[in-house]
Parts: sequence; C-alpha cells; structure tokens
Amino acid sequence: MKDIVNIGLIGFGTIGSGVVETLNRNLDLLENKVNKKVKLKKVVDLDIKTDRGVVISPGILSTDIDDILEDPDIDIVIELIGGYQPALKFILRAMENGKHVVTANKALIAKHWDELMISAQRNHVRICFEASVGGGIPLLQPLNECLAANHLESIYGIINGTANYILTKMSEESRNFEDVLKEAQEKGYAESDPTFDIEGDDSAQKLIILTIIGFGIYVKQEHFHVEGISHITQEDISFAKNELNSCIKLLAISKLVDGNLEIRVHPTIVPMDHLLSSVNGVFNGVYLVGDIVGPVMMYGPGAGMLPTASAVVGDCIDIIENREKPVLYGPAETSVRKISNINDLKSKYYLRLLTEDKPGVLHEISGILSEYNISIGSMIQKQENEGIPIFLVTHTALEMEMRAAVEKIDQLDCIKDKTIFIRVL
Amino acid sequence: MKDIVNIGLIGFGTIGSGVVETLNRNLDLLENKVNKKVKLKKVVDLDIKTDRGVVISPGILSTDIDDILEDPDIDIVIELIGGYQPALKFILRAMENGKHVVTANKALIAKHWDELMISAQRNHVRICFEASVGGGIPLLQPLNECLAANHLESIYGIINGTANYILTKMSEESRNFEDVLKEAQEKGYAESDPTFDIEGDDSAQKLIILTIIGFGIYVKQEHFHVEGISHITQEDISFAKNELNSCIKLLAISKLVDGNLEIRVHPTIVPMDHLLSSVNGVFNGVYLVGDIVGPVMMYGPGAGMLPTASAVVGDCIDIIENREKPVLYGPAETSVRKISNINDLKSKYYLRLLTEDKPGVLHEISGILSEYNISIGSMIQKQENEGIPIFLVTHTALEMEMRAAVEKIDQLDCIKDKTIFIRVL
Repeated sequence: MKDIVNIGLIGFGTIGSGVVETLNRNLDLLENKVNKKVKLKKVVDLDIKTDRGVVISPGILSTDIDDILEDPDIDIVIELIGGYQPALKFILRAMENGKHVVTANKALIAKHWDELMISAQRNHVRICFEASVGGGIPLLQPLNECLAANHLESIYGIINGTANYILTKMSEESRNFEDVLKEAQEKGYAESDPTFDIEGDDSAQKLIILTIIGFGIYVKQEHFHVEGISHITQEDISFAKNELNSCIKLLAISKLVDGNLEIRVHPTIVPMDHLLSSVNGVFNGVYLVGDIVGPVMMYGPGAGMLPTASAVVGDCIDIIENREKPVLYGPAETSVRKISNINDLKSKYYLRLLTEDKPGVLHEISGILSEYNISIGSMIQKQENEGIPIFLVTHTALEMEMRAAVEKIDQLDCIKDKTIFIRVL
Repeated sequence: MKDIVNIGLIGFGTIGSGVVETLNRNLDLLENKVNKKVKLKKVVDLDIKTDRGVVISPGILSTDIDDILEDPDIDIVIELIGGYQPALKFILRAMENGKHVVTANKALIAKHWDELMISAQRNHVRICFEASVGGGIPLLQPLNECLAANHLESIYGIINGTANYILTKMSEESRNFEDVLKEAQEKGYAESDPTFDIEGDDSAQKLIILTIIGFGIYVKQEHFHVEGISHITQEDISFAKNELNSCIKLLAISKLVDGNLEIRVHPTIVPMDHLLSSVNGVFNGVYLVGDIVGPVMMYGPGAGMLPTASAVVGDCIDIIENREKPVLYGPAETSVRKISNINDLKSKYYLRLLTEDKPGVLHEISGILSEYNISIGSMIQKQENEGIPIFLVTHTALEMEMRAAVEKIDQLDCIKDKTIFIRVL
C-alpha cells in the first residue's frame, strides 16, 4: 500500500460522525501504528449542512458519491448509510474500482453475503464488518482467527442493546414493558418504531453473520424462529427471579446438536450463575463454546456512536496492515448436516396461564400437558382479582408437543388469555 | 508460504500434548481454512518415552533439538518447554534460521521482550504468544488489532486461575485459605509449590505483556507492586460479601491516571455489580477500557491443556495466513509519562485489625488514622474470644499515608496481630 492511505466515508450520520471524531482524536496513534499517513479525503452524504457536532474541514464534504467511488486515490471506503440500497450498489462499485470496504451494515451483510464476498474475492480487495455485530466488541475477528483451531459448538448472544436495556430495567426496577420502552425511547436507546429491535429482527441479522463465521453456513432469516420480547410481563420476570433465581434475556442462539444446527432468537430464562445473566443494560455479550477452547465470552458496548466507530477504524487499521489477507470468514467447509426446525427443539419451558377461578382447571391443563408427554417440574398458582395466573415450569419437552399442547389449552373455556411460554436455558 | 507448512514442536508436556491432540482432531479444519497442507513434522522433548495419552506416530519424536532448529523445511516452531533457558536460546536460533515462532512462555516474553522482538524484526519472521496471557481467551490479538483505534485507559485482569479458584471457593463454601489451597493442589489446579500463582508473580508476568500491548511501555516486575492472596482470610471475604456486597479478586491492574501509569497486582475488593465479580473458579477475565470503545471484557479458560492449545494453534493459523504481518505489538509510541509509585495511589481501603479488649482502643486507632488524613467510612467491631477484630473501610486515602498509619498502629500495645489492608475497586 502507498505511504498515504486515503479513506472515503459514505454516510455522515451518528456512526459517521463517530468515525470523524475518532480520527480527529486519535489520528496520530493510527498513523504511528501503521507507519503511514492516513487521510480522510472525502465524506459524502445527502445532507452536508447539518452540524454533526464534530470538527471537519468543509472542503472534504460532498454530496456526490462519485467523489469517493471514482477517485482513484481513495484506498478504503467506509459505508455507514445502512439499509440495502443504495448501500449495496455503492459497496459493489467501490470493490469493482479496487477499493477495500469497511461497513457496519448488518442488514446488508446478512442479506447479500454471497454477492459481497464473491465481489471482494474477484476484485482482490477486503471487506470488513466488525462493527456489524456487537458494535465495539472485538468479536468477528477473534471468532474467525483466534478461535480458528476450534469446531464451534455453540453461540449464545445478547446482541440487541435495546431489548437488553428494557429487560434489565424491568428486572431492576420492577416496571412494565410499556413503561420501560417509553423511557428507552426518551433516552434514545429505542427507536420511535422499536419493532426491529424488540421483535428480534436485529438480533436475527446479527446471528446470521455470527453463524456464517462460526459454523460456515448461511441461513436466511425466513428459515429460523425469531421471537421478540413484547409479550414479556413483569410477572414473568419476577417469577424467573424469585422462583428460578434467573433472569430473562433475548438470546440469539446457534448450536450444533447431533450434527444439526439449531438457530433461533427468542427470550430465554437464564440462570443467575450463567455469565450471560451479568450482561445488563445496553451492553452486549456473546458466549461461545469451541470444542478445544471451551467457553469464551466477549462483552462490551453493542452500539453507540464512538464504540461502533472504534470497530470501524479498527477494521481500517487491519486493512492497512494486512491488505493481502484472504477474504475468508468462517471454516472453509461447514460441519453442519442440516438446519433443525424449531419444532424439533428439546427444552424446558416456563408457562404463564391465565385461568378462571373454578374447580377442575388445573386438572384439565395437566391432562392436556400429559397427553403431549409434557411433565410438570414445578407450579405456582396465585389468587388475583380478574382470574388466576398459573406459572409452570416443565421438564424437558419437545417444542412441537409444547406448541400443540398450548394451542389446545388455549381453547379451554377456563383459559382467559393467550398462554405464554418461554424457553429455559 | 509453500503449499505444505511444516511445524516443529519443542516440549511434549501438558500443553504440547494438547497441541498434538488439537491437530489430531481438527487438522482438516485447519488445512481447509488456510488452504494448505499442515504437517507436524517433529516433536522434540528430553523425554520421549512417557505415554502422553495422545496419538502420535513414533517417527516424529526426537530428543535432538537440531531436528527442528536445523531442518530447513520447518516453517513454524512452537516452543512449549517454558522457563528462561534453554527456551530463549532455542527461540532465538529458530528465528535466526528464518522460522516463525509461537510460544505460551509468559515468563520469557515478559523478561526478554526487547531481545525477542528485535530478533523477529531482524529475521523477518513473526513471533506470536496469544496463549501466554489468558490461555485460550482471544485477548492479545483483539487488544492489539481490533482495539487499535483506542488510547487504552485501563486494564483490570483476573489472570491467574489458581488464585481465582481459591478465592471463589473460599467465598462460595465459607472455607479457609489453607483448606481450599490443599483441595486445589489435590485437583491439580495448584502446584505443589503454589508460591508463583498465589503470591502474584504469574499475574505480574502476564500484566507486563498486557501493559506493553495496551500502553506501549515495558515495565520490569521489580518496578511495580505485587501482592498475593495468602493473607486473605474467611473473615475478609465474609465482610466484603455481607457488608460491602462485594467479593475479593486478585487483580492485575494497569491504569492511566493523569498521564501516569499505575501498574500493580494485589487482592482487591470488587463490587458484585462489576462484571469482574462474575469471573469465578479457574476462569480468567480481562476488563479493558478504551477512550473510544469504552469498557470491553474477554472471558474464558485461562489455562489448561486444550484451551491453551487452542490459542497456540490459532497463532499458527494466523502466521500461515499473514506471514508478512509486521511484528508490532501495542501502539508505536507510548502515551505514558511515567510509572507511578504505589505510594502515590489513591484508593479506598478495607482494614482488618485484631485488638485487645480494653477501653480506648478505637480512640487510639482513629487518632492515628486521622493524623494521616485517613477518614473512616464505616466500621464493624465483633466480640470474639482471643481478641476483638475491628473491620474498617476508609474513604479515599493516599497509600503512603495508609502504610505509615498501619505501621504506627501495629506498634500499639493493644494490637495483637499484623493489620491487613485491602484496596477497594
């Protein structure tokens, strides 16, 4: 690489401003480390008028994407506009023009994996996306490189800060979902439309990326179970805490069981003695198990302007130092036989049922569970005004049978609301 | 690099056997990843008769070090004999003969840093030592690369599994130090002479390596405070747990304060809401704070045959994929102005004093503390048979004054045993 490395930044939003701020603060550190001059040559955005709160020389701002993509002096393109288009188009053009790419765009990486990797290989450039999963946490590179001697056995990730913030607050302050969500929105930890975060889609996209790198297999989101946290109540969290010494976390899980890959995103009851239970607030944590190393966890800020910029600039340093590194994420061959269906999952389950206060209710419910081979581990029934909530924890059962049993239970006259079940780690 | 990569392994002990076992199990994975044949060509040890419990073809065993160092076909030398000599001599000869080196030898790396790095640079080979700190945990590479956009602010490491196992057991099972140490020795978690682990020397060597990579400065062990855990009693642990909602951990700390580096190893009272309090048993955890990323933690098995082998083989893969990567650990220039003396530390302190049961004792003690500008935050005094233990927690005080005060207190007639003080995180 030349003695001066020129960087073009597409997208001057929150993360883009974080990258500019990081370079403003730590350019010396960077340049000394790679022993080259590093220059942010151009920043392109549709809006170059808004004050982003960071120092930038006006001359490098532009609204014309060609100022980056067609400038032969630019070596590395950072894409931070997010979304599918025009991000995909810009990245592909950048690579065709011989530029390395750094992006935080999990949606794009998760959806267009093959196209992006093939283009990078064909054009002999690198594409790096450490920031796309776990924000500032060193995660993808350690998994892909430091742990490469391992067949991965499982990934358990708390990889959505919004959902984790809400669940943590609900637990710490005994508050309701809606109440905490509103606070999270006011504090800027949740979007005005929070669906993408709280319904698990964000975690699913990140899990797709982790699964490729960990297991060498690409699974589309349509092909696995994704379930959010909007149905979790304070009752569930209190029961988990007081009766099971556990907490509830939105987990993204990829796990080899008998050669088949379980891949799923859902709220999960996590025992307090598991390290993941200590990952609180907006922080992320990813717990990995390799066949040689055993369990490993990486923890840190999963989002935010500066933490994400840390990973983006880290990728730039990696590219400058190792521009010839092959574009190979994950094992070259997968050891996964097939993707398991969620119906084949075996798990313990927590159930919350809202029943009428009349004789025989429990008899009817336990009859249906028994019919589907589900045995009850423990049960609590509480007197309430509008009905009697019953809380159950089952022994290990088959998801298919659990779903069928719950469907049948919910048709009983004595059941007053949809029965909720949560898987237990 | 050639299409066949030949590896020579020096040292067929525990970790060496782990490397052989890892290659036995996962050679395919490795070869597919790097797209080359990888061959363990020779294993040299003084003892090639003992059965190590791993499958190995007898033809590759040798007692002659030249079978590795003088074989021009060997590309990578793995050194796992440990200690200073002949390990240093072997590694230097390997590098002079153009071979890359992978080692887990923390003592050697910590002591002979400059000599080893200069030799690697001069001979255009790489030297990797991920396994030397934190065993199988991806730690040095993420710190050196993924976080390279950051000025590091602090490192807090639980990096000795033996000490952490003892402290964890003392806390969980309310047992005494000697009792748990004995059990740890029986289980193989502690050496028959445990001094090196429990007195902090092992942590100190690892901290030297973390400090070079994190802060770009080499500090000899003689130049910082190293204190072990053998004086910690069940009383201390109970007080921390019950009165302070905290635990006691042996922490290795490097921390920039006003441009000066605090570097020290000592038992520390850690609040239960700090993630490091969840690092239990033989596991290790390193908590880092960067100016851009904020806090990050890496957790995992800090020792053991296979976990350590995972890091050793991971280094081999890294070398095969990136043989031209420059040998540069840490920032190119340090931002540390000077190394702080422990006497200049400002900390809260926990004190345990054993006093005679007579009037005026507390008055005398508090008088001395006050004389040294140390104010008391909280205090508990318990009635016992052989004397009255008093437990104090101070507000922030200067270490120099704390030491002088304790020295003076210990000269009082009413003090029946050496006063213990523990720093509070």
